[in-house]
Amino acid sequence: MSLQNFIPTPKFSDYQETFKEFYKLSRDEDGVILAEAHTKGGSIQLSVENHRSLGQLFSTVGADPENEVFIFTGTGQNFMMAVDPDGFALEAADLQYWSYEYGYKDGRKHVSSLINDLEIPTIGAMNGPGFHSELCLMCDITICTEDTVIFDPHFAGIGSVPGDGIHCCLQELLGVKRAAYALLTGHPINAQKALELGLVNEVVPREKLIERAKEIAAGIMMQHRTVRRLTTQIIRRPWKKRILDNLDGGFGIQMFGHLAKNKAIHVGIKTEGHEEGSYLSDIEKAVKK
Amino acid sequence: MSLQNFIPTPKFSDYQETFKEFYKLSRDEDGVILAEAHTKGGSIQLSVENHRSLGQLFSTVGADPENEVFIFTGTGQNFMMAVDPDGFALEAADLQYWSYEYGYKDGRKHVSSLINDLEIPTIGAMNGPGFHSELCLMCDITICTEDTVIFDPHFAGIGSVPGDGIHCCLQELLGVKRAAYALLTGHPINAQKALELGLVNEVVPREKLIERAKEIAAGIMMQHRTVRRLTTQIIRRPWKKRILDNLDGGFGIQMFGHLAKNKAIHVGIKTEGHEEGSYLSDIEKAVKK
Amino acid sequence: MSLQNFIPTPKFSDYQETFKEFYKLSRDEDGVILAEAHTKGGSIQLSVENHRSLGQLFSTVGADPENEVFIFTGTGQNFMMAVDPDGFALEAADLQYWSYEYGYKDGRKHVSSLINDLEIPTIGAMNGPGFHSELCLMCDITICTEDTVIFDPHFAGIGSVPGDGIHCCLQELLGVKRAAYALLTGHPINAQKALELGLVNEVVPREKLIERAKEIAAGIMMQHRTVRRLTTQIIRRPWKKRILDNLDGGFGIQMFGHLAKNKAIHVGIKTEGHEEGSYLSDIEKAVKK
Amino acid sequence: MSLQNFIPTPKFSDYQETFKEFYKLSRDEDGVILAEAHTKGGSIQLSVENHRSLGQLFSTVGADPENEVFIFTGTGQNFMMAVDPDGFALEAADLQYWSYEYGYKDGRKHVSSLINDLEIPTIGAMNGPGFHSELCLMCDITICTEDTVIFDPHFAGIGSVPGDGIHCCLQELLGVKRAAYALLTGHPINAQKALELGLVNEVVPREKLIERAKEIAAGIMMQHRTVRRLTTQIIRRPWKKRILDNLDGGFGIQMFGHLAKNKAIHVGIKTEGHEEGSYLSDIEKAVKK
Amino acid sequence: MSLQNFIPTPKFSDYQETFKEFYKLSRDEDGVILAEAHTKGGSIQLSVENHRSLGQLFSTVGADPENEVFIFTGTGQNFMMAVDPDGFALEAADLQYWSYEYGYKDGRKHVSSLINDLEIPTIGAMNGPGFHSELCLMCDITICTEDTVIFDPHFAGIGSVPGDGIHCCLQELLGVKRAAYALLTGHPINAQKALELGLVNEVVPREKLIERAKEIAAGIMMQHRTVRRLTTQIIRRPWKKRILDNLDGGFGIQMFGHLAKNKAIHVGIKTEGHEEGSYLSDIEKAVKK
Amino acid sequence: MSLQNFIPTPKFSDYQETFKEFYKLSRDEDGVILAEAHTKGGSIQLSVENHRSLGQLFSTVGADPENEVFIFTGTGQNFMMAVDPDGFALEAADLQYWSYEYGYKDGRKHVSSLINDLEIPTIGAMNGPGFHSELCLMCDITICTEDTVIFDPHFAGIGSVPGDGIHCCLQELLGVKRAAYALLTGHPINAQKALELGLVNEVVPREKLIERAKEIAAGIMMQHRTVRRLTTQIIRRPWKKRILDNLDGGFGIQMFGHLAKNKAIHVGIKTEGHEEGSYLSDIEKAVKK
Repeated sequence: MSLQNFIPTPKFSDYQETFKEFYKLSRDEDGVILAEAHTKGGSIQLSVENHRSLGQLFSTVGADPENEVFIFTGTGQNFMMAVDPDGFALEAADLQYWSYEYGYKDGRKHVSSLINDLEIPTIGAMNGPGFHSELCLMCDITICTEDTVIFDPHFAGIGSVPGDGIHCCLQELLGVKRAAYALLTGHPINAQKALELGLVNEVVPREKLIERAKEIAAGIMMQHRTVRRLTTQIIRRPWKKRILDNLDGGFGIQMFGHLAKNKAIHVGIKTEGHEEGSYLSDIEKAVKK
Repeated sequence: MSLQNFIPTPKFSDYQETFKEFYKLSRDEDGVILAEAHTKGGSIQLSVENHRSLGQLFSTVGADPENEVFIFTGTGQNFMMAVDPDGFALEAADLQYWSYEYGYKDGRKHVSSLINDLEIPTIGAMNGPGFHSELCLMCDITICTEDTVIFDPHFAGIGSVPGDGIHCCLQELLGVKRAAYALLTGHPINAQKALELGLVNEVVPREKLIERAKEIAAGIMMQHRTVRRLTTQIIRRPWKKRILDNLDGGFGIQMFGHLAKNKAIHVGIKTEGHEEGSYLSDIEKAVKK
Repeated sequence: MSLQNFIPTPKFSDYQETFKEFYKLSRDEDGVILAEAHTKGGSIQLSVENHRSLGQLFSTVGADPENEVFIFTGTGQNFMMAVDPDGFALEAADLQYWSYEYGYKDGRKHVSSLINDLEIPTIGAMNGPGFHSELCLMCDITICTEDTVIFDPHFAGIGSVPGDGIHCCLQELLGVKRAAYALLTGHPINAQKALELGLVNEVVPREKLIERAKEIAAGIMMQHRTVRRLTTQIIRRPWKKRILDNLDGGFGIQMFGHLAKNKAIHVGIKTEGHEEGSYLSDIEKAVKK
Repeated sequence: MSLQNFIPTPKFSDYQETFKEFYKLSRDEDGVILAEAHTKGGSIQLSVENHRSLGQLFSTVGADPENEVFIFTGTGQNFMMAVDPDGFALEAADLQYWSYEYGYKDGRKHVSSLINDLEIPTIGAMNGPGFHSELCLMCDITICTEDTVIFDPHFAGIGSVPGDGIHCCLQELLGVKRAAYALLTGHPINAQKALELGLVNEVVPREKLIERAKEIAAGIMMQHRTVRRLTTQIIRRPWKKRILDNLDGGFGIQMFGHLAKNKAIHVGIKTEGHEEGSYLSDIEKAVKK
Repeated sequence: MSLQNFIPTPKFSDYQETFKEFYKLSRDEDGVILAEAHTKGGSIQLSVENHRSLGQLFSTVGADPENEVFIFTGTGQNFMMAVDPDGFALEAADLQYWSYEYGYKDGRKHVSSLINDLEIPTIGAMNGPGFHSELCLMCDITICTEDTVIFDPHFAGIGSVPGDGIHCCLQELLGVKRAAYALLTGHPINAQKALELGLVNEVVPREKLIERAKEIAAGIMMQHRTVRRLTTQIIRRPWKKRILDNLDGGFGIQMFGHLAKNKAIHVGIKTEGHEEGSYLSDIEKAVKK
Repeated sequence: MSLQNFIPTPKFSDYQETFKEFYKLSRDEDGVILAEAHTKGGSIQLSVENHRSLGQLFSTVGADPENEVFIFTGTGQNFMMAVDPDGFALEAADLQYWSYEYGYKDGRKHVSSLINDLEIPTIGAMNGPGFHSELCLMCDITICTEDTVIFDPHFAGIGSVPGDGIHCCLQELLGVKRAAYALLTGHPINAQKALELGLVNEVVPREKLIERAKEIAAGIMMQHRTVRRLTTQIIRRPWKKRILDNLDGGFGIQMFGHLAKNKAIHVGIKTEGHEEGSYLSDIEKAVKK
């Protein structure tokens, strides 16, 4: 027997409880774990708090050797189309502090954890339109509903330099030219176009979304555990390179721009009903079509 | 007050004059500057002289802090389908000297200036078929007319190693396999196909070309100046990497091949009417279709 | 006269003989060399022996300065859909030794030789469905028959970590997301889809396959010898980077996974008729459609 | 108030307790945290268990925003010169499983956590000779005692492919040629030579080691919190690139070699007294000089 | 004759005049150009104005084809040990605007121009201690006086994130570990140590500094013009890679930190006589030794 | 039994004979193979013929699985200090053809073969002063005699752009600044300095050179065959990256410069006795000291 005992790895029932305000977690007997992100049981409304929870979730799930495939999705009709009304009060109160803690640190951490800390296959199931779609698009395999719309509101919507995870994601998946257009114009991409461009792997009816994700997971589970885990290191290499090349510096440039404007970044994203003629109102209309 | 005064930055009215033989320059009150390249008022006819002027223009425009968005286009029905009949007499007279000065130095400089010296958003508006389309395609956003045709005549047309800006551009936008095919066969790509492949972002009727470019510029101008400028550093990163990886060496290989053949590179590209059955005659026919 | 004489380069008639059990080699007066891979005169049946012969062929052809364009194809209706029934007996007998000699060394060598040792333009002519399609897809230009199907059976078919040449190939040509899907699910891609995705440059009727390859070769041969050869160094640069970034390490990860399972990798790929419901049986059905 | 509350970050008193069997943790009022690694109160004796604890420690410390500078050191006269006698029983019992879990996963995780999860300045204080010195050498600043000896026993000592963290570390700090020599011959480097070669930044008397580390930490603490944290992203960029380029693949190659030999990797490293004439006996003698 | 005439390249006598308040420019008949930077005839005192002039000088000199070797030095006993007392009044008055214009844009431009716009061999002749030594160290060849001291005051001196040109320079020349130490502690490196570490190529007596620079220039001038110019593209490739990898992002991170502190960056660097016990007072003492 | 038989790998006795005019080859029972390069039994005199033979040798030795460690050295007092008097008659007769065949192709091939085709540990034993020292310096381990002098005569000696293997080698081992100095000034580095700078691993008396190389080989042979071979893929990764990044393009730039001068590159390197005051005469004097 060794002279020292393992520091325990996280137990599912424990972190299921810890994260319940943010994610509905369930796991089958094979170790396929499903995380349904929510705010108060409905679609995600972005806040400093749930932004931080993403990296915390990914690294916790990755540290439990009993998890074997990870499925990530949202809740309700949208993936993320709103901001918690008071969700950025903290940032506004002390922009200098939170621009690092909330923005630069947490924002890089959740992308990095998704790619690096989860050494098991990941499936993103995008349950409708939303920003921060990189959370689904940077999973190994991505499926989405027919009404999903992908767009980046940073530049065109909230006047922010688009330097965080979503810009890495779009540059990797769309290439330099289509990404420049998407980032500078905020032009939305619907599910069918996303499939053609290779942003997602499959478009499925809403009611089949989780079922199909589980089918794919079951196919993956047919192979040997070590093979499954090693395969993630092969298929994610381009993501790892992209993050290294673009994220630390890009996010720094974004926050520099943020502070140069000297105001909280999330002004103007309401829970529902954006100002007529604004970027987000346009997206909402595009979504409804 | 500082002990020293700024070296003046370029003034628009001055360089508007300096460059008038090459570019019709105009600028609106917001700082959106439009450069219409021309030769004697018509479409560009490539020469040692206008080849050099490109880098000179881009670095001058970039050095004037009053420019905010840059639109680049040609003149007439073609972007660039001809060579100034005596435009390479200099090169032919002293191939060893000009292969460096005209080819290697100027040729790398204009690509590098477009990406590095112009820290403002750039829009390429390709006004018809032409070679050296990288001048429009490597702008941040690219639109083109419905009759635009994109092709690289280096290998198939004039027997040159395709190692300059256009090869960087096509490898970045088409990927290794489609680029190899385009470079080795000289196969032309029409506007619709260019849109599908992501070489351009929009195809617009000829008469709307500049109007649409200005609309896009206006959308960009709605954001904060620093945010606009920093965003160029985010969206161009893949171009910067591509240039570093491929251009200095690739251009060296091209000029090595050029001197190994020991003749001026631009023989055979006439102002109008190419030899029946030749590559460029084929392109002209493709263009007319 | 120099003090020493050249070590002779390989002679066509010699290596035509040496390789005849593996490749039918022919060469025209211009130096366009055609290699038709076969097993016993029919489609390739993979074995330790013909796996090694690939790198041997590519480096030999590359060392003969009289070869000018290389065309590579298979034989019969399939490119490679079977395994020599006893072709991996060696590997099974001494997995530890052959995992390096056959797998890691030969497997990296043939990819590396195709890209690095053959400094002449290469044309892959895929003559039907098959695995290890990277042998055709990593040629400079690739054409295929209408019934060609491209897929990677490593993960989904034989439970192996997909870390060898085909994974480099698919990541380069499909991008991270489509490649992850293809590698994790083994989903087959037919000729038309392969053309749309840019995996191949042209789809041609089976009976025209070699004729079309020769036409393309003839077009290339119109240019200067040095220009042709230097051009390969331009157009292959992305392949060289991909191989450096992914192959040595990726193949190491694959073989680690292989030994962790501790059984020969090619179990279950029969010459004909795979178990009903198995991955390869599904591919066969897909192929027949 | 936001709709959701932060998932709590780790509390010092909690993880001080959790890790006490592995690390003596203390923290001053400024947030300078000191971790003294030990086995049963003495020098580290490597085992599967404490190997895993490293990544667990680094990511926990990094997740607590109250930590500001991290100092890492060992205990006693050596940093790590022995193996827990039964510390690899697990690995020997199921080499296929543990080669991934213990080797590939934990081994990459602790290097990656040190660089990526700890966004605060780190100081390695090497308290004597030892293997796995990358744990100290990959801290931002490294100091060591006068009797410290640095060496890599993988190839020359235990016949393993040197592909894990220490090889990344030595290639980054020594360059390709000195690293090749150190890795292939196992040649030990003493403190003075390590200083000349830039492996460490300062050599200090043993009794001043922690005091000096704290002095350096105090100097760093004079600057603004955000500045300190952002600076880590600047100064570690080369480590991040090295890890991306070398670690996933290199470790895969190492484990491939490990399984090809098919025996547990840590045979032959005893707690004290190695076989006369063996590599480790030679190192012990070198250390004593 | 071509249809268009060259836009004139800069004339020496013109720009000698333009830049005279910043640089004493002289040129011999071979085209060896010497730039002696000064403020009011003495050592450089950094200001927003002379900071901008650097990039302006380098790109102007590079655009004149009659320049063949460039020698850059300072004036007086120091290279740059002071700040123009009112030199940053502009920055303090509008930090948001000037952090981009003065900091991010000019600061990246002068490094980039030195490496990219000057395609002729460059020799840095550091005439004494100073910050922003990258201006000399990033020349192709660097010599310095015996009393030169190299240090980076960003972190330890003025509490700034060290992300601009000097950090690129020190990481390239010192490697990750020595650079981290130099950047975090601000530890000064004297001329002899700089020679040993490879920061400079030769240490020469002050009175011989320019003479020796000219001797080296004369040696270079013995070779063919094109060969000299192409050689710069070979020997600078590592600088080009470093700048691409580190500068845009690193500088963004620096300015983010700068704005997070929300005060002008150059507070506390006086023309002479720094506060006792401060970092710069310590450097002054180190310099005097 | 497989359906096809292995294409035979090279047999030692065969290639020992084939290469005897260039290399004295011997091999012990363990597979340690020693290649002593010579011209007519004495030190190497560079020619088009022996330049080509290098790549031929390395790929042949690498293709024989019975070779286990490779030792490369020269003959006599010098490694390579002369040019075969008529060794470049071919090049002079048809510069355009041979600049590719001899220069670009063979010159890249021998570097690439040494690193890629020889998957066994390599030891360079430099037996005295010489150019093209990269042949020894790019072996995994390098030892040299006390009178060895390392220098690059391309720029300072023969007026050539230094873009081939030696520039890769010096940039990798010396770093950007020392390499720029060595390449631009041709400054020679003696054995002791080479050891300090890490160009070589050990300096040994001439009479012990081969003995010591064999001792090191014997140490390496104590480990498992697969471990030895895989280790080469770990320790050479920086060389592989350097070659990819610099060689194809750098060599293209060199040959471009070469043809721009339009004369054979090896004029002026005599077998013995160089013109007084010339670069090579200076090196000879330096060597004699």
